[in-house]
Amino acid sequence: MSFFATHEELLDRAQRAIAERVYWSAYPESPSPKVWGEAAAPDGKAAFEALLGQDFPLPGSGARIAPEKSPFGIDLDVRYATTPAAELIANASAALPAWRDAGAQTRTGVGLEILDRLKGRVFELANAVHATTGQPFVMAFQAGGPHALDRALEAIAYAYVEMTRQAPTATWEKRGEVFTKTFHVVPRGVALVIGCNTFPTWNSWPGFFASLVTGNPVVVKPHPRAVLPLAITVQIAREVLAEAGLPEDVVQLAVDTREAPIASELALDPAVKIIDFTGSTAYGEWLEANARQAQVYTEKAGVNTVIVDSTDDFAGMCRNLAFSLTLYSGQMCTTPQNLLIPAGGVPTETGPKSFDEVVAGIKGAVEAITADPAKAVELTGAVVNEAVLDRIDAARALGDVVLDSRPLDHPAYAEATVRTPMIVSVKDGYDTECFGPVAFAIATASTEDSLTIFRKTVGAKGAITAAVYSTSEAVLDEVELAAQEVGVHLSENLTGGVFVNQSAAFSDFHASGANAAANASLTDGAYVAGRFRIVQSRRPAPAA
Amino acid sequence: MSFFATHEELLDRAQRAIAERVYWSAYPESPSPKVWGEAAAPDGKAAFEALLGQDFPLPGSGARIAPEKSPFGIDLDVRYATTPAAELIANASAALPAWRDAGAQTRTGVGLEILDRLKGRVFELANAVHATTGQPFVMAFQAGGPHALDRALEAIAYAYVEMTRQAPTATWEKRGEVFTKTFHVVPRGVALVIGCNTFPTWNSWPGFFASLVTGNPVVVKPHPRAVLPLAITVQIAREVLAEAGLPEDVVQLAVDTREAPIASELALDPAVKIIDFTGSTAYGEWLEANARQAQVYTEKAGVNTVIVDSTDDFAGMCRNLAFSLTLYSGQMCTTPQNLLIPAGGVPTETGPKSFDEVVAGIKGAVEAITADPAKAVELTGAVVNEAVLDRIDAARALGDVVLDSRPLDHPAYAEATVRTPMIVSVKDGYDTECFGPVAFAIATASTEDSLTIFRKTVGAKGAITAAVYSTSEAVLDEVELAAQEVGVHLSENLTGGVFVNQSAAFSDFHASGANAAANASLTDGAYVAGRFRIVQSRRPAPAA
Repeated sequence: MSFFATHEELLDRAQRAIAERVYWSAYPESPSPKVWGEAAAPDGKAAFEALLGQDFPLPGSGARIAPEKSPFGIDLDVRYATTPAAELIANASAALPAWRDAGAQTRTGVGLEILDRLKGRVFELANAVHATTGQPFVMAFQAGGPHALDRALEAIAYAYVEMTRQAPTATWEKRGEVFTKTFHVVPRGVALVIGCNTFPTWNSWPGFFASLVTGNPVVVKPHPRAVLPLAITVQIAREVLAEAGLPEDVVQLAVDTREAPIASELALDPAVKIIDFTGSTAYGEWLEANARQAQVYTEKAGVNTVIVDSTDDFAGMCRNLAFSLTLYSGQMCTTPQNLLIPAGGVPTETGPKSFDEVVAGIKGAVEAITADPAKAVELTGAVVNEAVLDRIDAARALGDVVLDSRPLDHPAYAEATVRTPMIVSVKDGYDTECFGPVAFAIATASTEDSLTIFRKTVGAKGAITAAVYSTSEAVLDEVELAAQEVGVHLSENLTGGVFVNQSAAFSDFHASGANAAANASLTDGAYVAGRFRIVQSRRPAPAA
Repeated sequence: MSFFATHEELLDRAQRAIAERVYWSAYPESPSPKVWGEAAAPDGKAAFEALLGQDFPLPGSGARIAPEKSPFGIDLDVRYATTPAAELIANASAALPAWRDAGAQTRTGVGLEILDRLKGRVFELANAVHATTGQPFVMAFQAGGPHALDRALEAIAYAYVEMTRQAPTATWEKRGEVFTKTFHVVPRGVALVIGCNTFPTWNSWPGFFASLVTGNPVVVKPHPRAVLPLAITVQIAREVLAEAGLPEDVVQLAVDTREAPIASELALDPAVKIIDFTGSTAYGEWLEANARQAQVYTEKAGVNTVIVDSTDDFAGMCRNLAFSLTLYSGQMCTTPQNLLIPAGGVPTETGPKSFDEVVAGIKGAVEAITADPAKAVELTGAVVNEAVLDRIDAARALGDVVLDSRPLDHPAYAEATVRTPMIVSVKDGYDTECFGPVAFAIATASTEDSLTIFRKTVGAKGAITAAVYSTSEAVLDEVELAAQEVGVHLSENLTGGVFVNQSAAFSDFHASGANAAANASLTDGAYVAGRFRIVQSRRPAPAA
């Protein structure tokens, strides 16, 4: 049975899901042994540990390097073979014709089989994501495994729909002339995926699979500190390609160091026609301005904003926000940063709360979930790099520190750098992204004023997420309209187990492409439609 | 009944057509009174003539200008009100919220109603296209009317599919938490359509309607010499908008002169987020490089190529090519330019023909259809501008003139500048587009050599069309593969009534976006998907 036939039912289901957008998931998000079997977790851990201190089994013509540095202080020392950029591009270009000619169905089947094998190594991946990103383990499992697999499947489903929205061939007849028309799906060229340190799989897989199944050989360039999850991805992809009798070089790993980066050389190569990037605004904008030969999809930084107008569940609001601020030490592109609260306070179910009381409520909720270090680190994880610490320090000078960030000892990892969230009450300086566990409480004149600030900062700097708390339908509608204007997805009155910084594949769009924080959404039609072209031929056919 | 309901069946049929891609057309292409009624043609002509020498009834705050100059010497003197660029943008921006909030269905209904009214004025439009472009009348009717309407409907169908591929709302439930999710289709901003002199409706309508129905107010900037067809379009659009209770400024006309052009000021305005352009490579590349705030769709110049390998219908091949070279004096972006013929000749059904005999065959066929000036002008039409004449003169110096271009007297228009096609046998200098009635016969070492030249010139300069003549399946397959590599649509063995320079809406893609001649196709998923974004909200809902 072909890979496509094996996974066709899953693909059909996923296609339905992206249209219906009700809750659906293809990969169980619980790491429980009841779901995965008793052996899965220990086996995955052992598989991960067996990779440490070794040469990673992927080819490369250059020297081996071990650029990773775990935020938990886990000693990784996985040595990856490097390959010069020009050689990677040449290999990819040589692999292109066979991959193109394999056709949409075969390519999609290969993509789906890769997903299936990634699922089979999900605990090994979870350990790799955990170790390289500083995410707490359960989050690394969920966001790095099942949720990322869902997002990848979503991208494949979109790409397959897009490639097959017209018949592959048609018999065209007019006034006795008959032609066979063939509509070839042709790739744009070589694709480059530039990974980030914080979400190596979740943020890279959608672009990787979207480019791949639409016929573009992909060079995967991980962040030098989060190579392993993508190295495993590339390893599995090459295995599947080889089994399908296709060139392994359809997928290659490009490893580099922060000191000798390779991304720009790859990005400017004339053969590179698609680039997916997640990371800093500066580098994303550089790519957009300079890699002009390529279709460039960027997710950059934004100023995620929460408008607090009123609530009928004050404790729920505070708990929900506190969780979002604390999760992975605010190192998510979706973490709220600016909390816009009327200076005159807000109505709640127990009467009015002053600005200070609202801030104190959120502060208290953060303190509650970070009080016990052993429990706290399972939310915060570790700080991914020094720059986050610098930003915490700098934020102290921006206003009144309502809640200070404090270091925690990680019970399992003595070397881990852990920080709890801080809340700073500020009057200005909140209009740029402060990536890390820093939230700004901003006293506004009114909810109308909050909306003005929201429109201004998000309009200028962009945002990946926004949230509002209000008991008034009119206010919710008004914020929803403003969110449309500045192009940001809006979460309303989250008080339970759904968080503004989490999007659900097959239902929620992640980023919109409609503001400065990202020029594309993961995942929609626009995200896949430009990754290939249709080239047609028309050949006379015998009359029917 | 709403506009949408009125036209929904047509939309459904068009959606099926873009998927199936067999022959289908929504608008009858014959100008016959049997189809349109006896009065349609004379009434349309009278309506056109009533516009001449008058103020065109569209608003504008600036001076009136009459920039058009008919290639037939028809005295137009239609005076259009100008409006400063900033004012057009301000008007469009003010109209955006109401147009966005009208929703996909209402906007699509408005688009379809505009098409219906354009159809009702199709003879008036045909006269306007004829007079401004120099197209012969029947071609102006077909390409400027029904075929352009088909292309427009195709764009609307693609846009509607794209906007509605996910449910507009969904109820999402997970572990007892229930949310109503709303997926808003939001426009990118103000759209600008920059028309060309030769095909004001056919080349502008797809982008116009694609931007329009996806929610973007559109500023239509016609070529100064071909304003009237688009002025009528804008007039009808504003009528329909007004009847629907929507702002007329959703569609505006921007008129300028060659001496004081307005396009660049419009294109660089930060509010302009989409630009559609058909025209010169130089200006298209300027837009791509400079209008960085916008999604830019360009159709530029290319080197359309024909590979002659062998044929079993020599006369049919010659007739077919002669027609393509002659139609509208080669002033189509799809007209073949380079004829690659082996120096050693080609096999035909009556035995081998030498290179010279092949060229002579095509020459003879051109002479046959241009011998009688009265018949010839109904194919050639008139020369659109002086630059075409200059290129004819320059081409004489490039090689051996096998067939010279000659002026013809137009029986109906004494002032018309008419030129027949020329064929020049050249050894080099054929690697850039020579827009106009100039074809180059190029003696190649072999069909393999022809393929090398094809890959090289089309790979470097792009092409909108390509054709091949061969009796060998293997050669056809090889050329089809090469065409995929350089991203050009290929027509094979055309000997009858289908011509390489004509594409059929709902079946043929026009341009591919896969080579330098155009960065997009009219019309596919990629052409519409980037014209809007999805911005979602999620609001708690009562449990089901």
